[in-house]
Amino acid sequence: MSKPYSLTLKANSVDLETSVVVCMLNENDAKVLGVSSEDRVVLTNPNNKETYVSAVVNIVKNLFKQGEIGISSQAHNELQLGNDKNIIACRADKPESYDYIKKKMNGKELTFDEIKQLVDDIKHNKLSTIELTAFMTAVKINGYTIDEIYSMAKNISDNGKQLELNVDGIIVDKHSIGGINGRATMIVVPIISCFEELYMPKTSSRAITSASGTADSMEVLADVNLSAQKLQEVVEKTHGAMVWGGAFDFAPVDDKIIKIERPLQMDPEGQVIASVLSKKLSAGAQKVVIDVPMGKDMKVKTLSDAERISGSFVATGKKLGIDVRAIITDASVPCGNTFGAALEAKAVLEILEGKYYDNLAEKACEIAGELLELCNVVEKGQGTQKAKELLKNGKALQKMKEIIAAQGKRFDNSKDVPLGQFYEDVLAVKPGYVREISIAGFTQTALASGAPFDKGAGVICMQKQNSSVEKGDVLYRIYAENKDKLAYAVAYSKKIEPIKVDQIILEEIN
Amino acid sequence: MSKPYSLTLKANSVDLETSVVVCMLNENDAKVLGVSSEDRVVLTNPNNKETYVSAVVNIVKNLFKQGEIGISSQAHNELQLGNDKNIIACRADKPESYDYIKKKMNGKELTFDEIKQLVDDIKHNKLSTIELTAFMTAVKINGYTIDEIYSMAKNISDNGKQLELNVDGIIVDKHSIGGINGRATMIVVPIISCFEELYMPKTSSRAITSASGTADSMEVLADVNLSAQKLQEVVEKTHGAMVWGGAFDFAPVDDKIIKIERPLQMDPEGQVIASVLSKKLSAGAQKVVIDVPMGKDMKVKTLSDAERISGSFVATGKKLGIDVRAIITDASVPCGNTFGAALEAKAVLEILEGKYYDNLAEKACEIAGELLELCNVVEKGQGTQKAKELLKNGKALQKMKEIIAAQGKRFDNSKDVPLGQFYEDVLAVKPGYVREISIAGFTQTALASGAPFDKGAGVICMQKQNSSVEKGDVLYRIYAENKDKLAYAVAYSKKIEPIKVDQIILEEIN
Repeated sequence: MSKPYSLTLKANSVDLETSVVVCMLNENDAKVLGVSSEDRVVLTNPNNKETYVSAVVNIVKNLFKQGEIGISSQAHNELQLGNDKNIIACRADKPESYDYIKKKMNGKELTFDEIKQLVDDIKHNKLSTIELTAFMTAVKINGYTIDEIYSMAKNISDNGKQLELNVDGIIVDKHSIGGINGRATMIVVPIISCFEELYMPKTSSRAITSASGTADSMEVLADVNLSAQKLQEVVEKTHGAMVWGGAFDFAPVDDKIIKIERPLQMDPEGQVIASVLSKKLSAGAQKVVIDVPMGKDMKVKTLSDAERISGSFVATGKKLGIDVRAIITDASVPCGNTFGAALEAKAVLEILEGKYYDNLAEKACEIAGELLELCNVVEKGQGTQKAKELLKNGKALQKMKEIIAAQGKRFDNSKDVPLGQFYEDVLAVKPGYVREISIAGFTQTALASGAPFDKGAGVICMQKQNSSVEKGDVLYRIYAENKDKLAYAVAYSKKIEPIKVDQIILEEIN
Repeated sequence: MSKPYSLTLKANSVDLETSVVVCMLNENDAKVLGVSSEDRVVLTNPNNKETYVSAVVNIVKNLFKQGEIGISSQAHNELQLGNDKNIIACRADKPESYDYIKKKMNGKELTFDEIKQLVDDIKHNKLSTIELTAFMTAVKINGYTIDEIYSMAKNISDNGKQLELNVDGIIVDKHSIGGINGRATMIVVPIISCFEELYMPKTSSRAITSASGTADSMEVLADVNLSAQKLQEVVEKTHGAMVWGGAFDFAPVDDKIIKIERPLQMDPEGQVIASVLSKKLSAGAQKVVIDVPMGKDMKVKTLSDAERISGSFVATGKKLGIDVRAIITDASVPCGNTFGAALEAKAVLEILEGKYYDNLAEKACEIAGELLELCNVVEKGQGTQKAKELLKNGKALQKMKEIIAAQGKRFDNSKDVPLGQFYEDVLAVKPGYVREISIAGFTQTALASGAPFDKGAGVICMQKQNSSVEKGDVLYRIYAENKDKLAYAVAYSKKIEPIKVDQIILEEIN
């Protein structure tokens, strides 16, 4: 049968970075094609009708005149346009998964094949921002069953690259959900990598809503932007690596979903679980510990929520063939005392160098211990002790230096790590005791100072919960890479008070 | 306290037609400001710090270089930029209603003040596409209470222009929800306008998913793009008018909401009711009949749904001080036999000219009758009869000609109405009887032929349900303004079969 009415248009490249392929169509051409904003057109290369791309319509009046069309460079590449800039545009049908979006909005469970189609349409940019947002909102409200989480994780992984390690041993991994500071992962990986029979190719994200992600902090010390092949070499050589997951195409679909979720800080539980486990599947992980930090400033605030999420992780892992152990951790106070990429990286090196042993070090040793027990390389109950040993005897530090060197060294000594050039101490304005230390407050302060984009920006908390404070004592120190940002962060933090100092006697009645 | 870090950038106008104000920021400037795609920046005119606009960030690599920013012409105007093209950009906080979006996603009821803030933020383009889509999806899934529908209707109306008629009489209105063909409104308005004590300033929308809206069909006969003042003049003179609602700023907020709902054909029941009644409120309507067409191809498919929606209309109307009567109408077969702007306009004139009296004419008379009874200008039970009288004695036609003349005449005689230059009859390929006539099928066929953009495009159904058909009989005729669109629509319609012809004996077993 014939195709809908089509137009031949002169293509102009536009380099918009959008989550879907968009095109800019003159309003008159849009009328002729019968499309409105947010409708979709199919664009075809007239010289090669097999190459086509689906694009969401933006309507312009003057930017492109009638007969012209603006297309993103992504579309330009996919269409393999050479010197001939003509393309054929026609109105597109709704994507196949359109009905499944509506089905999820109606509260129904999606089958494996329906989720497969959805993931495929997301991968090929066939869903508009509106369609993808509606789907994720429906998932947030109506939830996923374990079968749906499994289908989503499996299809996200199947649609991305797989890591293929040529090793004879157990591939282990860990993941922490929900925004606690302190980079325990950067201590766990070198400890685990000390074992001959274990391999830990850790891929991490950059900060989404926090002051630093593991990839951000590790990037202060070494290159994290590794190809899959380079990652394999590093792991085969050192047994461990900490790289930015975005550098491979592990989960391109997940990246597109996160672009929609981030602005609303919307993290549907089932989608988070699918996202995490899809990457573990792609990395070939066999044994995984999931850290569920629980606290009033965390995503997970109550024990019943933490237990439900943990249960879903374990059940979905079983379906995927991954041995998952979920642990619920105390996140009522900050983990370590730093917030920001370089500050957190420096603290990790200080712990590995044996300069101190704080609750961040303890957390790292406990998680490493869980992994060691899960992999049966130590006896049950001996894991944490074994991890502490490797921290104390300097083997973990040695391993960390090897990993940094293999990935591409920047700094491997804590005293070399560069912090923001400008800093200011915020002092107590009255004597009292530290009634509250807010992780969220420190995170917001670090963001105000330029984190996570400015690596040297952030905050060090100088006080402990319940400690006694004199007027003029330093409560916290803010770092920034620029004076304006420092001034803004100082003023902002004084307003939100990440540390609350109070007296025990609140009022005197005479 | 100090503001977040800001940059002075050189502004370039870009004429994107988007539902929110967007700006295009070079990736390096975005990093400095600490914003990502879909974050928001506040843009200020350095010469007048009171003029500012909030814009959603699109990140570009080359389209604008570092130090430049692309802003929509809307933003350019709001910032009152003269020759000096510099603007100040800084990261914006989340809009105030952000928390209410999350609240609705969590299934909670919003207060009047919360909805007021939401409507205000939508009006000022403070919500991104993602935020507004998430809100509407949450409303679709979690629903509104009657109080929420009232709050939404009142605030949408309060944020738009009001029609102020200088008349001594009752202002009446009607509205039909849900996509039946046939323009009953264009018969109801002239009938009602014949009464000295009644005024009917009917504002209508253009087609959203159907082959024609009342504004589209009326535009074939007269100008519908009237200013509020011109509308008042027409109504004060003729007692009636049929104009495009989008021409005034009756409900700018509603227009923005519909832009989000349309691509997903998502029409949350409560939002539809609020949208309809807000416009009746702004038009000053005192007595309103709501037509709820029920049928398998309609939005409303079952009697229980129709009754629930009708009840919500009446209850919300009461809170708004509008006397609403809802009627549930039979939409199992097409209303009249035309689909498309000019075809439907022509049929309306033919009925007013007394050429025939079909189910479209009957529907119009029954609705006019309901309005007459609601306004107590005729005795109960006499309404339809009175309406038929005005149709038969030519007074309604005379009134229609007056209204057309007052609005700006194009055509007021059915034989003058121009149809698409190209047409083709689709014939029965076998003898049998008409088992099914699909309103949705004819609507899709009309859309394929170019409706609603091409006014002359559309379909005439040539058969009635259950009638007997010989091979070669004309089933329907398709009109188009262009040969390619005609060929496409013919082929498409043969695939979807808007008329199904079958024999009674389905199979012989020997």
